[in-house]
Amino acid sequence: MGYTFNYIIDNQKIQFLFEDTFSSILNYAPQSKIVIITDEQIDALHNNLFTGFHVIKIQSGEINKTQQTVDAIIDQLLAASIGKDVFIVGVGGGVVTDIAGYVASVYKRGTRLGLVPTSLLAMVDAALGGKNGVNVGQYKNMVGTIYQPEFILFDLNFLNSLPISKWENGFAEIIKHACIKDAAMFEKLSNHNLSDYQNNSMLLATLIEENVHLKMNVVVEDVFEKKDRKLLNFGHTLGHAIENVYNMSHGKAVSIGMVFAAKLSEKITGFDANSTHQIIQLLEKYQLPTTIEIDNDKIIKLLFADKKRIGNEMHFVLLNEIGSAEAKPILLTDLEKYINEIMLCG
Amino acid sequence: MGYTFNYIIDNQKIQFLFEDTFSSILNYAPQSKIVIITDEQIDALHNNLFTGFHVIKIQSGEINKTQQTVDAIIDQLLAASIGKDVFIVGVGGGVVTDIAGYVASVYKRGTRLGLVPTSLLAMVDAALGGKNGVNVGQYKNMVGTIYQPEFILFDLNFLNSLPISKWENGFAEIIKHACIKDAAMFEKLSNHNLSDYQNNSMLLATLIEENVHLKMNVVVEDVFEKKDRKLLNFGHTLGHAIENVYNMSHGKAVSIGMVFAAKLSEKITGFDANSTHQIIQLLEKYQLPTTIEIDNDKIIKLLFADKKRIGNEMHFVLLNEIGSAEAKPILLTDLEKYINEIMLCG
Repeated sequence: MGYTFNYIIDNQKIQFLFEDTFSSILNYAPQSKIVIITDEQIDALHNNLFTGFHVIKIQSGEINKTQQTVDAIIDQLLAASIGKDVFIVGVGGGVVTDIAGYVASVYKRGTRLGLVPTSLLAMVDAALGGKNGVNVGQYKNMVGTIYQPEFILFDLNFLNSLPISKWENGFAEIIKHACIKDAAMFEKLSNHNLSDYQNNSMLLATLIEENVHLKMNVVVEDVFEKKDRKLLNFGHTLGHAIENVYNMSHGKAVSIGMVFAAKLSEKITGFDANSTHQIIQLLEKYQLPTTIEIDNDKIIKLLFADKKRIGNEMHFVLLNEIGSAEAKPILLTDLEKYINEIMLCG
Repeated sequence: MGYTFNYIIDNQKIQFLFEDTFSSILNYAPQSKIVIITDEQIDALHNNLFTGFHVIKIQSGEINKTQQTVDAIIDQLLAASIGKDVFIVGVGGGVVTDIAGYVASVYKRGTRLGLVPTSLLAMVDAALGGKNGVNVGQYKNMVGTIYQPEFILFDLNFLNSLPISKWENGFAEIIKHACIKDAAMFEKLSNHNLSDYQNNSMLLATLIEENVHLKMNVVVEDVFEKKDRKLLNFGHTLGHAIENVYNMSHGKAVSIGMVFAAKLSEKITGFDANSTHQIIQLLEKYQLPTTIEIDNDKIIKLLFADKKRIGNEMHFVLLNEIGSAEAKPILLTDLEKYINEIMLCG
């Protein structure tokens, strides 16, 4: 029932195995050469799939996306005398696909890699584009590489066991894609709601595939984030800071970050306040928060450590209209002023 | 007085600043954007060069080529709010250039990088080709990336403070280059000795430049080690194992490894025993050891963990004649037999 499409990045072909089943990973390497990296939750839910495979399990959750987890995996690979010819397959959400990608990029200076995203967020965003990384203390993705997998396998059955909070995470990124690149998708999302997508697998599959193409087209044009790839950070600059300070889920934090970026756009690009209102309505429809009680000083300190800061400026993604975005440099001093002006607490 | 030549790897230009002076690094970035990574020994000897630069010092020695050292550097970069636009310059021997290269490749998913090798070994080998890495326990370079610097600066004044043991390390790799690729260089080395090169800076500069070109030509043809780059591992498979088990310097261990590989070549490629004798004589002339009391079991265990092992085979670099080498797969079971046959203890 599955079908395949490819993207080429830096002369490397990435095969997208869409609506496929897990066992197709055996088309890439014999079972003896595969090491599965997954987390405890996925292992508990889908253990039957892993019979006969060498499995390395990590603890679930963003708090474990650290160098220590990477070190522990490498120790296990070495202890099992795993060679450079291993095929590492990351099976899980964004934490697992990031960790697996990073390990594959540095173990014995690089091994083969495949990804099986199991969450909506990982399917439409985290597993796509080759970026991986670990957090250092409160700072997200401070260490990592850009390393492409040979395949990304989409088995939508994994979503049957996805908790509701993880659906929201995925839709935050889907709404982000719509905001920066696709007014028609924004319209379509406005005409449906979360349970429509949860109950209609064809509708969901189409939405996921659209989002895969949207992101991959941006990435293919711009692997090293000189141009459009920056736009994918819409909502993420403030979002990452909130996520860390308030220990909030990625999707919820990005949702609040998008509202802030929309309000900032009103001040800088002349973005229409009615459009900001539409974005807030859409986020609320998909059960995402749009306001927060915020400690500005903590947030500002974290923003200053962001990867996107260049000297005393920060590149911030702003909207011109729904479906059209641009990255603009903002002086940190101005940004601080705007943060204090834009009341995020409603 | 300096001059420049370039090599292109993966569309990236690497500038070789030959017989140049340290201050030329300022042609690449303003002082405020540069972070120097060096070690305590280099800092103690050449501290005057670093005035006004942000310097991160690591402990000297192979034992500190670890993930912990990388983590400590990353913590210092984050604590100082160093952005992705930093220009990292590694100034030191192979440990420093490896650590600096690895940090630059993963910090905020990759920063600018320049290298200033200060030892003969780093100038003719370690700093060239983009391979970096850290050791994991007894296993060498188990984690790392391939990441090219924008420049490699050769300031031969650094060699004035190089201790004698480090000269031997460098000559082990130079003799390796001669063995695998350059019979004329082998001849020339046979007609000189260590003090000739230490006392004649023009003779030394010519030798270093020849070795840079030799290695870079191999690397440019073969960044990912599918073909000739493997030949650079001549003497290194057993060498790495000995280095770790006996806590011996890299050069000495590789020297013993080359003698073993030459004797193995006699058995497999029909390499002339007289040539093995010539290699032993040349190594001894440059004060390198050629025999060792060895614990075969320990060595074999480490060999089996080597990156170059593929399944139950190991690719081993063998000589056909002096100046001509090839990589051949050897079954691990055969290798074990050969190790027990070839008496390394003289």
